[in-house]
Amino acid sequence: MPNAYFVLAEGDTVTLDSDETKHLKVMRANPGDKLIGIDGRGTIYRFVLKELGKSSSSGKIVEREYIERDKKRVTVAVASTKWPRLRILIEKATELGVDRIEVFNSVRSVSRLDESKTAKLLTVAKEAAKQSVNPRVPEVSVLKSFALEGSRNLLLDFGGRAIREMQRDLAEERNLRVIVGPEGGFTQKEIAQLTDRCTSISLGSRTLRVETGVIVILSIINYFLGRI
Amino acid sequence: MPNAYFVLAEGDTVTLDSDETKHLKVMRANPGDKLIGIDGRGTIYRFVLKELGKSSSSGKIVEREYIERDKKRVTVAVASTKWPRLRILIEKATELGVDRIEVFNSVRSVSRLDESKTAKLLTVAKEAAKQSVNPRVPEVSVLKSFALEGSRNLLLDFGGRAIREMQRDLAEERNLRVIVGPEGGFTQKEIAQLTDRCTSISLGSRTLRVETGVIVILSIINYFLGRI
Repeated sequence: MPNAYFVLAEGDTVTLDSDETKHLKVMRANPGDKLIGIDGRGTIYRFVLKELGKSSSSGKIVEREYIERDKKRVTVAVASTKWPRLRILIEKATELGVDRIEVFNSVRSVSRLDESKTAKLLTVAKEAAKQSVNPRVPEVSVLKSFALEGSRNLLLDFGGRAIREMQRDLAEERNLRVIVGPEGGFTQKEIAQLTDRCTSISLGSRTLRVETGVIVILSIINYFLGRI
Repeated sequence: MPNAYFVLAEGDTVTLDSDETKHLKVMRANPGDKLIGIDGRGTIYRFVLKELGKSSSSGKIVEREYIERDKKRVTVAVASTKWPRLRILIEKATELGVDRIEVFNSVRSVSRLDESKTAKLLTVAKEAAKQSVNPRVPEVSVLKSFALEGSRNLLLDFGGRAIREMQRDLAEERNLRVIVGPEGGFTQKEIAQLTDRCTSISLGSRTLRVETGVIVILSIINYFLGRI
């Protein structure tokens, strides 16, 4: 159930589209209720619901707060995997305020995605943003292969360096990309492409499910970057 | 699907009971396969499957490793909530190597548990231990109310202190209990009982689902305690 609704703000009025109006009805909202809106681009609105229509609704803004972006950018890049896990992963990464989610096809990905699925992934991110009152919806991209440009790349890997040694180093990073491989592991050829341009990091000896691993690494990175 | 099986070790032989034998069959294991076993009390075994019977199986131990316990103890204490969330929470806490899980009934708990459910909760923890090759199954208890004895207690709370300020302090703790309230919040009376004996800590401004919050706090505590 959402804790916030997507709104379009103009002057002191917010407008909610037909999907959001449906959500209002599911939540049994009534005119006069004080609700929370997000615009997906950084602003949280407190508004009073005025009109609850058939295909759109509107409210009066009582308060608005622009959440300043820190100067840091975190991307989670994950090899395509089965939908239920991918869904949880996108939801959790959004809850944790990631800036960008990249799903790439890896040679051993058990299920492959193409760009036509971007909208489906984005819907999950938008729902998670509403649920967690995260005013910024992460960018979502489907890529043919992993991207490594423009960022400090961290590759989740059992044999990697303990993340503990990297707190000071990572705390200063402006652009981090965390790369999570497919369950069957990357191929030798992929590893060769990754090795030179990534720092392998380990989360300890435990076998974590992919979505757990992503939450753990994002928690620690958020901690390093001062986001928690 | 399990990455390890529960075994009973005697001399150089491991025995697997009927439930584990069923799992072996689901995984299409065959005599001669090299598998991993855990005893729930700290030892990981590598063994070769010898006999796959109707109601029990056995294998020959090739290697055994006792995972030393650190001198620290982490308990997660959570107000009873709906089963699907509670299940995920127990699974994730076990993946993250928690020592003890307490589920307590809170005045505003949407669903209440009694001791008869302990076995059901323990089964989830055991399955998660097998999946994550965690050789120690956490203790699981159902309590009438929250317990606060014998530990440094951290209460997850929006208004709490930033966990960032507590790294040095918590790194030294030998016995930590993380308390997570019900979705509707504790009552005033409960808060009065908790306040004096807990440190309130915040995970930032985001609204996290209960299971996400538990993974985030355990990740950071594991980091503080040197478990990651």
